[in-house]
Amino acid sequence: MTYIRNAWYVGSWSHKLEAGVPLAVQILNDPVVIFRTQSGKVVALADRCSHRLAPLSLGRCEGESIRCMYHGLKFEGDGSCSEIPGQDLIPANSRVRSYPVIERHGWIWVWMGDTDAVDEELIPPIIGPDEGTYLLGKGDIDYQAQAYLIWDNLLDFSHLGYVHPTSFNSTETWGETRPVFTPLPLGVRADRWVLDQPPLFGDQRSDQWFTYDFLVPGILILTTKTFPVGKAEEFGMTTPPDDAAWIQNSYSAHAITPLTDGTARYFFTFGPHADGGTEAGRDAFLELAFTAFAEDQTFIEAQSRIIAQSPGAQIMPTSADKGITLFHRLTDKMIKAERESKLEPAA
Amino acid sequence: MTYIRNAWYVGSWSHKLEAGVPLAVQILNDPVVIFRTQSGKVVALADRCSHRLAPLSLGRCEGESIRCMYHGLKFEGDGSCSEIPGQDLIPANSRVRSYPVIERHGWIWVWMGDTDAVDEELIPPIIGPDEGTYLLGKGDIDYQAQAYLIWDNLLDFSHLGYVHPTSFNSTETWGETRPVFTPLPLGVRADRWVLDQPPLFGDQRSDQWFTYDFLVPGILILTTKTFPVGKAEEFGMTTPPDDAAWIQNSYSAHAITPLTDGTARYFFTFGPHADGGTEAGRDAFLELAFTAFAEDQTFIEAQSRIIAQSPGAQIMPTSADKGITLFHRLTDKMIKAERESKLEPAA
Amino acid sequence: MTYIRNAWYVGSWSHKLEAGVPLAVQILNDPVVIFRTQSGKVVALADRCSHRLAPLSLGRCEGESIRCMYHGLKFEGDGSCSEIPGQDLIPANSRVRSYPVIERHGWIWVWMGDTDAVDEELIPPIIGPDEGTYLLGKGDIDYQAQAYLIWDNLLDFSHLGYVHPTSFNSTETWGETRPVFTPLPLGVRADRWVLDQPPLFGDQRSDQWFTYDFLVPGILILTTKTFPVGKAEEFGMTTPPDDAAWIQNSYSAHAITPLTDGTARYFFTFGPHADGGTEAGRDAFLELAFTAFAEDQTFIEAQSRIIAQSPGAQIMPTSADKGITLFHRLTDKMIKAERESKLEPAA
Repeated sequence: MTYIRNAWYVGSWSHKLEAGVPLAVQILNDPVVIFRTQSGKVVALADRCSHRLAPLSLGRCEGESIRCMYHGLKFEGDGSCSEIPGQDLIPANSRVRSYPVIERHGWIWVWMGDTDAVDEELIPPIIGPDEGTYLLGKGDIDYQAQAYLIWDNLLDFSHLGYVHPTSFNSTETWGETRPVFTPLPLGVRADRWVLDQPPLFGDQRSDQWFTYDFLVPGILILTTKTFPVGKAEEFGMTTPPDDAAWIQNSYSAHAITPLTDGTARYFFTFGPHADGGTEAGRDAFLELAFTAFAEDQTFIEAQSRIIAQSPGAQIMPTSADKGITLFHRLTDKMIKAERESKLEPAA
Repeated sequence: MTYIRNAWYVGSWSHKLEAGVPLAVQILNDPVVIFRTQSGKVVALADRCSHRLAPLSLGRCEGESIRCMYHGLKFEGDGSCSEIPGQDLIPANSRVRSYPVIERHGWIWVWMGDTDAVDEELIPPIIGPDEGTYLLGKGDIDYQAQAYLIWDNLLDFSHLGYVHPTSFNSTETWGETRPVFTPLPLGVRADRWVLDQPPLFGDQRSDQWFTYDFLVPGILILTTKTFPVGKAEEFGMTTPPDDAAWIQNSYSAHAITPLTDGTARYFFTFGPHADGGTEAGRDAFLELAFTAFAEDQTFIEAQSRIIAQSPGAQIMPTSADKGITLFHRLTDKMIKAERESKLEPAA
Repeated sequence: MTYIRNAWYVGSWSHKLEAGVPLAVQILNDPVVIFRTQSGKVVALADRCSHRLAPLSLGRCEGESIRCMYHGLKFEGDGSCSEIPGQDLIPANSRVRSYPVIERHGWIWVWMGDTDAVDEELIPPIIGPDEGTYLLGKGDIDYQAQAYLIWDNLLDFSHLGYVHPTSFNSTETWGETRPVFTPLPLGVRADRWVLDQPPLFGDQRSDQWFTYDFLVPGILILTTKTFPVGKAEEFGMTTPPDDAAWIQNSYSAHAITPLTDGTARYFFTFGPHADGGTEAGRDAFLELAFTAFAEDQTFIEAQSRIIAQSPGAQIMPTSADKGITLFHRLTDKMIKAERESKLEPAA
């Protein structure tokens, strides 16, 4: 599996990045150090001193810079080396790679591709945890599995009735019915009603409306609204009106970042609408999410092990895989275009 | 090392396979799920759903079937897929491999090769733990070593005096004398007297008669009888008469299954003859076996590490290796024949 | 990285090698067993029985020999096999490799190359822990990193001010100034004054004189003397006279042995001059060394991980790397000569 490089990957939570404390991560196999400077700016550099390849994440933040604490070379936010102790000459190859970085919606987004192609507009339109509409809990999980297996899990909710029957109270209706998938320029939209279902909390059955966008490079934005049984039909089995009174309204944003070819970090928020929502409700949602996502993790890590033990084994898509197929077709095309753009002679 | 595929490998104990509880194993690198259906039949399937390669061993047994609990596909004992939730069409490539399986002598035997070649007669004539003649304890050990190193250990008992001097009270006579090896159609037979030896239990020295068959694909069947000192000579140093009164008579069956190229599972029974044997005696035998087999494991796992550290190192057979040489010659020939049979055009 | 083979590598401490207790080590990837015979001689053999490749280090020392405790083959100090139980013929290929070995200066030195090239004079002129001039504590550390990264660390003390500011009280002067490097036939010499520095112990600032030889195949011999501030200038910023009164005089010998391509064992002694030195002082030096060397280890193991994650990444030498460059140039030349000598037809 190759991953798109011209994209924003979530490297960290905003709130976990303390000023002056470098954070080591891997993204798409690249060792990256992320740090917040004295002035509050976030910087992402190759986590590898140009001198002897020691990690800058063991270094010391100094103002807007970071100093390698092996032999003292100092680097600026743009990756340039500004000091080599005991030496006046700063050679050109002393520069380390600097990754464009944007702090938005509670996350630190790192651009892993060509700087020529950087496009701030490509950051997905997420509702961040502190943006008010929803009361959102925050979680993250490290996976011993390929990121794309987690993406595929999220692109096919037919697993809910089998993997989450008790945590999310999901029924097998999830597997028996199909959502409507709509291709998006940078992803796939899935909309569906699931009728007369047990609720997440309490005991009032409801018609449930799920709509999510799954966007490059592995971002899920999900809204769920539940209504009294019968409302789905009343709404013509299509998108409920914005002003329709719901029983429950929850929101969730997920970002699954490939750390290496075989590992991933899964960042997510989850919680109820601020209207009628409470902090206790938010915490209950989050606890539920951790329970259910651990169920996914068991399956996906086991799936990853079976794949490793089965050279040559092929998947067999079913009609439930339409979202997965659309999304992979899109990313394959984007990866191909990335490759070809590198082969073009510069204008 | 290549292993024979047209053979029955022990995948599990019978008594450990509860109805409705799938068991994950690897045999010859293949992930396999073994389960007992509602009607009591034992089934072995590739532990890999045809859909997205999740392990069926995380699935749910339903009557005679197993359902993948990732997206709900259901599989029958013959490997056919009988249900894909939300989809009427069952494609031909939805089938998973079904391995022939026989439950016998307390073990679950799995056929890893061509179904055309299945032959129930190839299951070795073991005395099972519940078959009455002997009171047999049961044990198993997981090895971080190639199965064939364990086989070789069992094909050359000259190690007993060096590896098991205190556990089995074995003397260096084991290394100084040689058994008579006789080729069998599917293995090697070893017979020997070891004279005037200390006993396993108590302090009465004895002449000891050991006879074992080591059979494809890694099955040892061992009988030991001890007699008063002098009896070996009286019996002409050959097989003691069946009705000759013994002091001790014990039996042991061993099955060493390659899990992967570098790991193995060792199943064994061990215990005294029912005539005069007691449950306490059986337990004492089993405890002794665990002690001695841990001594073997220390050596064989260390040997495996040294081999990994020594690319190109060759073994140097001694005259003690006759059984090993005969057995490897046989299996090499069988593996070659298996390969050639695959190259033949179908009639 | 290839390592020189025609050299003496430290395989063990003398005092840790009890007579009759075989020690398993790896040196340059070779499994080696070292043992002290009944007569006190030290022997190093390939840790791999010629029969079935079991480790001789699990064997039993018998007089001047070692017996493999798998099937009982016995080996002499020269690697010849002197006994195969149950067999009169001792084949020529039963011999195991014997490594020349010398016990000197508290260490066991093992020659890993051609026996034709053995040269006792190549053992570096170390002061051993029991040779009186210094009171030397002894330590060793196992590294999950390539030996040459540890060598490079010792060949460039500019890291002291960054890695050891609190343990060794080192200042950034170490990075801002450079030693004088002098090529030696089998290594590199570094001499330097560091002026007006805080002391290791107490609070008297001093001018500090450091001189070390770093010798093939990874041996550091370091002497440090401190003098009242101003003395360096008085001595013309060059080697202080032997009879000049010092405040502190310490000595340290280090041997870094590559165990495998990616692991190493670091043996060291450290302590004050016997004149005025005390056992408590020696213990304080040793404790300090362990603290500081753990700081190095953190950096070097992290550097090793970054290198593994960064295929193709190149180092960028600075002017602080002169010693490293000189030493690698020397060893590269020696390795090339070793290779070429193997290609020459024998005279």
